[in-house]
Amino acid sequence: MNKIVFLIQCPDQKGLMAGITDFFAKRGYNILHCQQHTDLQQGRYFMRIAVDMQDLKSSRQELEEQFGTFAEPLSLSWSVHYTDQVPRIALMVSKTSHCLYDIIFRQKEGDITCSIPLIISNHPDLEYVSDQFRIPFYCLPISKENKPEQEKQVQQLLKKHHVDVVVLARYMQILSPEFLEACPGSIINIHHAFLPAFQGANPYRRAYERGVKMIGATAHYATADLDQGPIIEQDVVRVNHELSPQGLRKVGKDVERQVLSRALQAHLEHRVIVSGNRTIVFSHEK
Amino acid sequence: MNKIVFLIQCPDQKGLMAGITDFFAKRGYNILHCQQHTDLQQGRYFMRIAVDMQDLKSSRQELEEQFGTFAEPLSLSWSVHYTDQVPRIALMVSKTSHCLYDIIFRQKEGDITCSIPLIISNHPDLEYVSDQFRIPFYCLPISKENKPEQEKQVQQLLKKHHVDVVVLARYMQILSPEFLEACPGSIINIHHAFLPAFQGANPYRRAYERGVKMIGATAHYATADLDQGPIIEQDVVRVNHELSPQGLRKVGKDVERQVLSRALQAHLEHRVIVSGNRTIVFSHEK
Amino acid sequence: MNKIVFLIQCPDQKGLMAGITDFFAKRGYNILHCQQHTDLQQGRYFMRIAVDMQDLKSSRQELEEQFGTFAEPLSLSWSVHYTDQVPRIALMVSKTSHCLYDIIFRQKEGDITCSIPLIISNHPDLEYVSDQFRIPFYCLPISKENKPEQEKQVQQLLKKHHVDVVVLARYMQILSPEFLEACPGSIINIHHAFLPAFQGANPYRRAYERGVKMIGATAHYATADLDQGPIIEQDVVRVNHELSPQGLRKVGKDVERQVLSRALQAHLEHRVIVSGNRTIVFSHEK
Amino acid sequence: MNKIVFLIQCPDQKGLMAGITDFFAKRGYNILHCQQHTDLQQGRYFMRIAVDMQDLKSSRQELEEQFGTFAEPLSLSWSVHYTDQVPRIALMVSKTSHCLYDIIFRQKEGDITCSIPLIISNHPDLEYVSDQFRIPFYCLPISKENKPEQEKQVQQLLKKHHVDVVVLARYMQILSPEFLEACPGSIINIHHAFLPAFQGANPYRRAYERGVKMIGATAHYATADLDQGPIIEQDVVRVNHELSPQGLRKVGKDVERQVLSRALQAHLEHRVIVSGNRTIVFSHEK
Repeated sequence: MNKIVFLIQCPDQKGLMAGITDFFAKRGYNILHCQQHTDLQQGRYFMRIAVDMQDLKSSRQELEEQFGTFAEPLSLSWSVHYTDQVPRIALMVSKTSHCLYDIIFRQKEGDITCSIPLIISNHPDLEYVSDQFRIPFYCLPISKENKPEQEKQVQQLLKKHHVDVVVLARYMQILSPEFLEACPGSIINIHHAFLPAFQGANPYRRAYERGVKMIGATAHYATADLDQGPIIEQDVVRVNHELSPQGLRKVGKDVERQVLSRALQAHLEHRVIVSGNRTIVFSHEK
Repeated sequence: MNKIVFLIQCPDQKGLMAGITDFFAKRGYNILHCQQHTDLQQGRYFMRIAVDMQDLKSSRQELEEQFGTFAEPLSLSWSVHYTDQVPRIALMVSKTSHCLYDIIFRQKEGDITCSIPLIISNHPDLEYVSDQFRIPFYCLPISKENKPEQEKQVQQLLKKHHVDVVVLARYMQILSPEFLEACPGSIINIHHAFLPAFQGANPYRRAYERGVKMIGATAHYATADLDQGPIIEQDVVRVNHELSPQGLRKVGKDVERQVLSRALQAHLEHRVIVSGNRTIVFSHEK
Repeated sequence: MNKIVFLIQCPDQKGLMAGITDFFAKRGYNILHCQQHTDLQQGRYFMRIAVDMQDLKSSRQELEEQFGTFAEPLSLSWSVHYTDQVPRIALMVSKTSHCLYDIIFRQKEGDITCSIPLIISNHPDLEYVSDQFRIPFYCLPISKENKPEQEKQVQQLLKKHHVDVVVLARYMQILSPEFLEACPGSIINIHHAFLPAFQGANPYRRAYERGVKMIGATAHYATADLDQGPIIEQDVVRVNHELSPQGLRKVGKDVERQVLSRALQAHLEHRVIVSGNRTIVFSHEK
Repeated sequence: MNKIVFLIQCPDQKGLMAGITDFFAKRGYNILHCQQHTDLQQGRYFMRIAVDMQDLKSSRQELEEQFGTFAEPLSLSWSVHYTDQVPRIALMVSKTSHCLYDIIFRQKEGDITCSIPLIISNHPDLEYVSDQFRIPFYCLPISKENKPEQEKQVQQLLKKHHVDVVVLARYMQILSPEFLEACPGSIINIHHAFLPAFQGANPYRRAYERGVKMIGATAHYATADLDQGPIIEQDVVRVNHELSPQGLRKVGKDVERQVLSRALQAHLEHRVIVSGNRTIVFSHEK
């Protein structure tokens, strides 16, 4: 069943819910799912509302214009998503395959709805995965000298392939602020630690040295501040003294791939709203 | 901030959300929180809606009559709860104190909102707890012969103390169908296993013998079918071969008390709707 | 570093540990890891001891004869495993790929040490996976009529490929007692429920109907009693009323594949001892 | 059953296990439990060995002298613990009761084996808890001016009551390096965050602002570096955007009390060995 999903945020005010649901009811839409959140700290209101696409009697543009007219006096910030438009994602990787495989696998199984027009890597190592699943693979090596040039090539690929979401599936490079700004869609990164613990390099080695009893992973939107972007999903796994740094790395891979896939799924299902440096992640509807 | 909470269920139909929110908006209520669920299997719709009690301009009875009039043509089943009416719970126990302490502790800390006018037990062992917290304690021993009589005494105590919720906090007796039917409010039980595994007696011993790798606990509404009532909350904890049946029992206590307290909290916050033998448990709003 | 691993069980008695470690120390072995468990209920003692293979100064046969001579008066049951002998596993599947992919992926990554000489299925659907990873695929359809014949063919394949472990990675067929008896190595099955809850068919549907708040998966050794064999590993995931039976199935896949892979890994690392219908699973050493 | 527990660490070397177990076997001790760990990074070996106290045929002093003589050439660092000597703990608190109640409750239930001769607080608020359980309560208010004096009084109380372990059960004061050095026994602290994330003040507020999806707690040995001591136990709980800083605080209390109690239990059962800034925590034997 196809849906139209609106993500809305605005200053909290009386009558929002009745007003918004009335907008859709008056136009004959069946509301399939509606979730709200009021942030009392900030005085802001957030809503995700999904209606039945079959009830769309006008053009999409018309609907959007009508909602825009409705939204303006209420100061709503909003975006609209049609589930018959399958999002296009680019997977950026370096040398480790666990996150890459996990996303491709879930996409094949129908658990993540997207198309994957390309894989980009700074190393040739994972080309065999793209062969297995017949996804075009672009190897763009990076060095101190060619970084701006390489990032430009990446941007061109993203544009050419109409990419909506870039997934840094263990792409072990720091993207420049210029890249981040120029990037047309969202960028989701996986950090192999429970942020804000162990930001930056070598988190497993540092987790070992600190002697923590759980290790974790964090999926977040990439921003100009390294490992500081809004967190979408986190998880941890219990460890003990028997695990070396290398052992932590092995155990951590399972958490990394799950956290990244869950975050990507939430994003692709239009369940995430960013508010400052925090996210509202609405729950499933399956 | 005091709230009026409506719990609603009805056959799924178009326009419910707009209609219900409009009912409150038209009367000037600020909707503080609203959660919905549509059960597509059963074609049923569920809603929890919390409005600001300050916006109540009529008597409570008037509001309820108006909502009743509104609800009838839509075939809504509903209940209304006013958070300034503190629910009264009776704790029924036998000999183990962990669930008893946990509930009393959370109530003292303000994490569970209720009053505890009495503790009822079939054994004298835990009277000291009631002394510590100055809660009246009724010891009503039970035997094969006096069971109907004992249950009658319990019912009288529940009525006399205007009890809304009975919590079986490891009360190791099976309540008769007559008792369950006569009981004015809800009855919440904790079973020391992950239902439907290990229904009935000696779950830890049987879990040990089956060699399970996790043990659990289940809080559910008590019904005439033993351990078959609608489940409110469950949780588990990892165990291994090092634990004897006695060791499982010790480890399990932590899960039992948390599961029961979380279930009780959800019930007292009017976040639970029963639908057949399943429950809809809406999330927190803190 | 290659190791020799002994798995030992016997009636509990004084001096076992000193005696066994002395056996190895006298012969110049460095003990790399040693774990014990005493089952006080049964009066049985269990040990896993790993020594450095470099310290082997005799033939393997000689070592085994010497240990046999040592073991007899103490009534030790024991097995010995050399980590330079890579176990060979057969993957049996039907139509769903999540467990299949997960095991292959972990083997490729070096997290599970084994070779996979063949995949056997009663359906042709997953042949593409075997193509992707260049693993021979045998499609042996099954019907009421040909079941004994089909199982014979499977047995022949297992023998021909010198298979040590059969992994039922969502092979949706019940194996006959004859098959189980004839099978040369261990058989590990994944059941898509938290056993002993929801044994048999349609566990997700039944979990939905019972309204459980967590669903799980169980990996166990297959025995003649369906879903009754010794449990190696279990895990669960929290669910709520928003998930339909189909939604539970999707969420459950993640637990299934992890539980099966962890169980297989424990088995292949010679960390599991079966005792009656229970297992002792010793921890990692990474 | 009473036990003698040795905690041992030393440079890794061949023959340790056989040598140590032989020491006890030769003297007629039944080894009830023995756990080892080899830290390959540091080349260090760790052992916990528990023998049956009934097999003690000499004086304790004699046993210790004999073991000392045995230990010296192997460079063993070791300590010995007799389970018939019940450890004495001091609980230090400020205003919140959840950790205090949890420890007292577990001690009453027999899940934590210790005596609690006193509670020390810098505020009078929790005296009622000490009344309920008849534990002497010392209120020693603290200010900038009297801090050295107050700490001296605390030290005198600890000495007078022969305290083995100080538990900072949400004692919201930073102990001076002088206090830490003078303290005769171990000091265990609970920090209300998943260290090393959110060290220092206001972790829940900062967790809220960072938008983390899980919050945690950490029990560690207190050292001169604030929140930097060796970690004994950690755990986390999933949270979401619905929780305010105050909501996180409420939810976090459950994790705090469990983490602290589990750490204390491990310490009191002589299952913890400190190695640099890391801990080896051996598992249960129940």
